Amino acid sequence: MKIALAQLNYHIGNFEANTQKIIDHIKLAEDKGADLVVFAELAICGYPPRDFLEFEEFISFCEAAALEIATHCTKIACIVGLPVKNQVLQGKDLYNAAYFIENGEIKAIAKKALLPTYDIFDEYRYFEPSRTFSCIEFKGKKIALTICEDLWNINDNPLYVSNPMDELIKEEPDVMINIAASPFSYTHDDERIKVLSDNAKKYHLPVFYVNQVGAQTEIIFDGGSLVFDADGAMKAEMKYFEEDLQVFDLEEIENVRNKYPQPERLTDIEQIHDALVLGIQDYFKKSGFTKAVLGLSGGIDSAVVCALACRALGAENVMAVLMPSKFSSDHSVQDAIDLVNNFGCMHEIIPIAAVASAFDSVLAQAFNGLPFNLTEENIQARTRGTIVMAMSNKFGYILLNTSNKSECAVGYGTLYGDMCGAIGVIGDVYKTQVFELAKYINNERELIPVNTIVKPPSAELRPDQKDSDSLPEYDVLDKILYHHIEEKQGSKSIIAKGFDEALVQRILKMVNIAEFKRYQTPPILRVSPKAFGMGRRMPIVGKYMA
Amino acid sequence: MKIALAQLNYHIGNFEANTQKIIDHIKLAEDKGADLVVFAELAICGYPPRDFLEFEEFISFCEAAALEIATHCTKIACIVGLPVKNQVLQGKDLYNAAYFIENGEIKAIAKKALLPTYDIFDEYRYFEPSRTFSCIEFKGKKIALTICEDLWNINDNPLYVSNPMDELIKEEPDVMINIAASPFSYTHDDERIKVLSDNAKKYHLPVFYVNQVGAQTEIIFDGGSLVFDADGAMKAEMKYFEEDLQVFDLEEIENVRNKYPQPERLTDIEQIHDALVLGIQDYFKKSGFTKAVLGLSGGIDSAVVCALACRALGAENVMAVLMPSKFSSDHSVQDAIDLVNNFGCMHEIIPIAAVASAFDSVLAQAFNGLPFNLTEENIQARTRGTIVMAMSNKFGYILLNTSNKSECAVGYGTLYGDMCGAIGVIGDVYKTQVFELAKYINNERELIPVNTIVKPPSAELRPDQKDSDSLPEYDVLDKILYHHIEEKQGSKSIIAKGFDEALVQRILKMVNIAEFKRYQTPPILRVSPKAFGMGRRMPIVGKYMA
Repeated sequence: MKIALAQLNYHIGNFEANTQKIIDHIKLAEDKGADLVVFAELAICGYPPRDFLEFEEFISFCEAAALEIATHCTKIACIVGLPVKNQVLQGKDLYNAAYFIENGEIKAIAKKALLPTYDIFDEYRYFEPSRTFSCIEFKGKKIALTICEDLWNINDNPLYVSNPMDELIKEEPDVMINIAASPFSYTHDDERIKVLSDNAKKYHLPVFYVNQVGAQTEIIFDGGSLVFDADGAMKAEMKYFEEDLQVFDLEEIENVRNKYPQPERLTDIEQIHDALVLGIQDYFKKSGFTKAVLGLSGGIDSAVVCALACRALGAENVMAVLMPSKFSSDHSVQDAIDLVNNFGCMHEIIPIAAVASAFDSVLAQAFNGLPFNLTEENIQARTRGTIVMAMSNKFGYILLNTSNKSECAVGYGTLYGDMCGAIGVIGDVYKTQVFELAKYINNERELIPVNTIVKPPSAELRPDQKDSDSLPEYDVLDKILYHHIEEKQGSKSIIAKGFDEALVQRILKMVNIAEFKRYQTPPILRVSPKAFGMGRRMPIVGKYMA
Repeated sequence: MKIALAQLNYHIGNFEANTQKIIDHIKLAEDKGADLVVFAELAICGYPPRDFLEFEEFISFCEAAALEIATHCTKIACIVGLPVKNQVLQGKDLYNAAYFIENGEIKAIAKKALLPTYDIFDEYRYFEPSRTFSCIEFKGKKIALTICEDLWNINDNPLYVSNPMDELIKEEPDVMINIAASPFSYTHDDERIKVLSDNAKKYHLPVFYVNQVGAQTEIIFDGGSLVFDADGAMKAEMKYFEEDLQVFDLEEIENVRNKYPQPERLTDIEQIHDALVLGIQDYFKKSGFTKAVLGLSGGIDSAVVCALACRALGAENVMAVLMPSKFSSDHSVQDAIDLVNNFGCMHEIIPIAAVASAFDSVLAQAFNGLPFNLTEENIQARTRGTIVMAMSNKFGYILLNTSNKSECAVGYGTLYGDMCGAIGVIGDVYKTQVFELAKYINNERELIPVNTIVKPPSAELRPDQKDSDSLPEYDVLDKILYHHIEEKQGSKSIIAKGFDEALVQRILKMVNIAEFKRYQTPPILRVSPKAFGMGRRMPIVGKYMA
């Protein structure tokens, strides 16, 4: 039996495009001699559809698309993911399911049993877990078909049902197929390879695993679909961050025990780079936009975002706006212009002094001689925010937000100022990782001016300001933040690691207080296992500093 | 047996304050002759604690608080809600539980079985459902203790476990006690009374129900704790939107079948009014702030928010900023000044023309003679946003957002402009309801100038602009929105009700496109069964228009 894995980039709710893409790849798999083509979890509607699932019409569209797809499965069979109605008046309204289609007919339905409800996942919000399991017979083979998380519970006892494979194995299947929508983080590929290999070994069966690829707002799917033999040895690893379709011979996977020449794995920074480029690309493509705008300060954050945007959209589609104030150093403007020249993107220079003084004058009476402070710093940031948004409104550019994860964490940024934007490009990248990204981008030649990389970070909102005036050095800050955010450690545990007590408490308090700012920030492209946004849900008016 | 229901206002993560309040009310119940005092669901940490629950130190603080509370339960017993660890290495880490404390010791633990995971609720994210149930014996009575949702499944089959009361009833209890954190919406009080009465009738037992009161950012608890006799007749209804402690004699509830003289119920608009005042109050109190600022346009939205803020915080703590432009009508300024005088709050008049022209001049080169359009309208709105935020930064006032639900729905507002603010006061109140609120506020005398109520709504961002230039009349718009948002109907169903097809499609498309704006709006005080925010999770880059 020849199995094609179709690793595709879907668009949530775009039934026309998704259906056409699936039909095209049925044909392609057919042309390549496949007997069966496998599409990802919820391929028909895209993942995660969120509360669209609560609209009956949305579910009808899924069903209609599946019937349309079925008419194209006459020569080969297909497995495709979609939400289906729970016909029993009990529990949740839907199942997260997969159709097995053969000879134009829906021959079997597999339903997901283990429903992730943590981090960015909300599957119990919508879906009823499956409690019944049976293999699918096709061309003399028994297929154990499961959906994503159903294979991830291998080292733990199951939550609410027995492990689906422990049930399916009783029917003595010949192969496992798992369809997934498994979001990217820079730690995820290794985990995925291990868990699938462990499944192959535990059940002594080959595994065919197909993932989605592409970004859905903040959630990025990296592809990397996989095949393992019954010993748990990897036999194929499909492309990362790109669509791919490959056909595998089941008998060969079963019988030939040669070692697959695994290509060198991408480093974390390479993965983050590729994920962010794809994230920008898909945000624009799926929203129907082509051009981006950003404020370019001469600092490293906006430089890296500008570089990523040029790679994602083409430099000709990127407008960098330089908005110097009286506190901007000469080198900042020059560094920004050098960057623009290196990449060849558009730019405008719009000094903000006239607007900042207009604000000062209209506020003078109310402020009644009170001294310059954070208020006036924020006015500058908000003047810049208004200018880039005006460029966005006038020309249809989409504003990219350039805040990094360290700043987002401690609230070192101005709401409605530099925190504006449609999508946060590096909001899940700590400042120390931003430096690594910059070096990686400069790998072959100096695209980001070295001066931008080596100078001390500064917001340049008052004379001689440095980030280190208000924050500890970023290598210390980022470690404390990582323990708190990614590892969910409270102050006691972090202090026990040897960090200064007062510093840890100050930082954690800043993280807590900044919750109201993060609530209003743009969606942030997720590249880590714990990003700000839907995956981290904190109270705003809460007193605990953890 | 005398049972005290303690309906209190907790603060998420503020263990010191919550613990002290609980201890004070144990003493108060004791003084009032109670044998048992009952506190709400997750009283010790406040509800909803969200991802604080993922921090081990947070759970330790809950446990420590419970032990401290236990030392005060020597003369009377107490029931109090808190998260407890799941000791088995299986499933989720926690239970949503209640301690039964007697003679200073934790004598029993009840665990929640039915975990709401819909709308604003995420309980499966954190909690393992209980599968074992037993009654608590106290003073010769058997208590069937359940937690909130455990009693809400009466008309449906259970999701994952049998209905907890169906198990507990086998032990022949004498009374049901239910502890809750049941968020307010203007439809919720009637549902709650019905479901509790139905439980009393079904199991033929008295029910004692205690709810939280107070607001936790956007979620408002209305109190209204209840007692029913075994026939399902209401015997007591505690205060709404206020703390309350009342003591009831179980034998009397069991034996005396007199009808409780139920006070007149609040209308929807009265409830919304009281909920919003409490919502503002608690946002400020729990954040440690006292003073508010808002932009006052002369229109009805900001007028109503100003009125609510004056009632919540005291007029002396409210700063209204009038920011006329060249497009503002004279009557707008006069209406705003009349309002300020009627309420006696502070005000400043800060004309924006100088700033708007400064923006025009710095942008002139980039804009290259392009005509006035939405861009310049947005610049005015963002200039105002920057001015009120400057007032906030300089004086520590907290900015109230004045956008209504109709505007939020269709994106009729400027991000980083009039959509700024720390908390959205009327973002869950449709425009037609805002008019009703205004009339209710004017019930006794004209506080909001009648002119503000009767004039056609306008953003006043260009000459002679009216909302009805871009939107249908609000009574039509709000009906379409209600069908779509509250009732989750797609375009087909709404058109089938007789609304104009093109209009419905235009409105639903606007709702869909505005998702990126709503992602960045402040948290919105929730008063309806389906508010924007955590309870409605839509993709941003999604194509479905439903």
